[in-house]
Amino acid sequence: MAGMIRPPTFADIRIAHARIALHVHRTPVLSCGVIDALVGGRLLFKCENFQKAGAFKARGAFNAVLALPDDVAARGVVTHSSGNHAAALALAARTRGIAAHVVMPRTASASKKAAVEGYGGIIIECEPTLAAQLALADSLVAQTGGTMVPPFDSAAVVAGQGTCAIELIEDAGVELDAILCPVGGGGLLAGTAIATDALAPGTLVVAAEPMAADDAARGFRDGVLQPQVLPATTVADGLTTAMSDMTFGVMQALVSDVVTVSEDAIVAAMRLIWTRMKIIVEPSCTVPLAAIMEGQWEARGKTVGIILTGGNVDLDLLPWVP
Amino acid sequence: MAGMIRPPTFADIRIAHARIALHVHRTPVLSCGVIDALVGGRLLFKCENFQKAGAFKARGAFNAVLALPDDVAARGVVTHSSGNHAAALALAARTRGIAAHVVMPRTASASKKAAVEGYGGIIIECEPTLAAQLALADSLVAQTGGTMVPPFDSAAVVAGQGTCAIELIEDAGVELDAILCPVGGGGLLAGTAIATDALAPGTLVVAAEPMAADDAARGFRDGVLQPQVLPATTVADGLTTAMSDMTFGVMQALVSDVVTVSEDAIVAAMRLIWTRMKIIVEPSCTVPLAAIMEGQWEARGKTVGIILTGGNVDLDLLPWVP
Repeated sequence: MAGMIRPPTFADIRIAHARIALHVHRTPVLSCGVIDALVGGRLLFKCENFQKAGAFKARGAFNAVLALPDDVAARGVVTHSSGNHAAALALAARTRGIAAHVVMPRTASASKKAAVEGYGGIIIECEPTLAAQLALADSLVAQTGGTMVPPFDSAAVVAGQGTCAIELIEDAGVELDAILCPVGGGGLLAGTAIATDALAPGTLVVAAEPMAADDAARGFRDGVLQPQVLPATTVADGLTTAMSDMTFGVMQALVSDVVTVSEDAIVAAMRLIWTRMKIIVEPSCTVPLAAIMEGQWEARGKTVGIILTGGNVDLDLLPWVP
Repeated sequence: MAGMIRPPTFADIRIAHARIALHVHRTPVLSCGVIDALVGGRLLFKCENFQKAGAFKARGAFNAVLALPDDVAARGVVTHSSGNHAAALALAARTRGIAAHVVMPRTASASKKAAVEGYGGIIIECEPTLAAQLALADSLVAQTGGTMVPPFDSAAVVAGQGTCAIELIEDAGVELDAILCPVGGGGLLAGTAIATDALAPGTLVVAAEPMAADDAARGFRDGVLQPQVLPATTVADGLTTAMSDMTFGVMQALVSDVVTVSEDAIVAAMRLIWTRMKIIVEPSCTVPLAAIMEGQWEARGKTVGIILTGGNVDLDLLPWVP
């Protein structure tokens, strides 16, 4: 645990919220009568699929980039990510007028590379292993003098992600029995748990993840940070990352349960949201609804906030199309 | 023109708006910076894909059903439609606690039949010709004493559809240069034109339709109601209906232009909305954006309202999936 990063405080999340307010959307909280009737509860969906760059990751990325002093920011930012964080960081960097170097595995999909390039990010490809990505990112930091902005193991990033829960709690208009949140690396979960603990201590925070990538659930049960068993093959490809000491610590302190769901349930929940709510969400964010539909978490009679984390889907590769 | 139905007045649309208010959604008006940048104008999308039963048709159906006196309503309603109107009428009828008999061609898709049945509508199948549908619907009216609620050739239905433009004009917050609206049978177009003429006489109303189903454009140019050339094969399958004398008359009096678009442009506009706005819209409602993207209507420098008419898509049959 040497060198463990300190998680942000709720005050840090409040500051982040003010800092990023002009740059990210205050996304709507939507509900759906048909889905409520199906699960027997009241579900309030925080729609981060409508967020800038299509995912909640814009919150953490903007907070990290905007918090840098001018002289540090001028040297740019660096990250390693093949997903939404990379695109979000590229957008935040472009907004500030600085460079973003993004290390991506050469196996990353064309659409993910296009998203990063579309926001002006500079992609450096490497072998598809975490070790190779970390080594290359470190060397880029050394070479450019830029600041590393990791996808989740950063107090600034977690503080940004926590701003989503502030808005959900404020806009729900009623006290929530629980907030359900997907867990991958745990940045959103940690930020949500810290904000909820401060703003709505009576509201439980529950994490949901695919059975096929259940490191958080195993760790929660055993009390020890677990590695992901790789390769973790799940349609919820945003949730295959293992947690960090920091995000795991927050989870152990503030999260009430971690539930796991089947692949079929994830796809069914995704299709239900598309069909009934007419919004596009990526598989990773349908895991909480899948948990309710599969009976892993009982929503009957409850008012539940669910964070729909993103909407970046490759429309040529839908999970129900053979 | 004997027996031509009188179009509704703006007062009728106002009354309809009050009548249906508790039963339909006041759908949001959304915008998208990326699409605005692409077309060089400001586009305000009225999102009827989020409407009850997934389309603006709920407005006309609820108005028609709720306007019936109790004794007439008790005998139920009848319609012929294979699309959104059928599902909307079934929902409106169930809400009032009356029967809806829906004549559908036996070739209608399973998902469309399921939508009608899901709202409690009683489906009667027939041969897939308009003549067969009309004859069967007439005999059902005679048999049940129910009221025929046609998909568009009805003052009550058009008055309901016109309520959408009231909300768009009110919620836009700025004066619109134009409202673009798809045209099939012309019910939405007629209601939109009447409401806009009364509320925002400086705002043009422009109709858009597929080249492959261009009866409205031909009629607009020649000044005479035109039949559809059948079979009209277009991905915008909600727009293959020919107009009625009534809706055509309103178009000739109040609509400033009718533009046509290619199939490729319709699919490209649909995919752009899905990808960038993260909302699910059906091909029929992407025709106005397609017209702008294809240069059929110039939006540069303008503020434009666009009615996204519905979001009922068969997710197993997307136009870009082979």
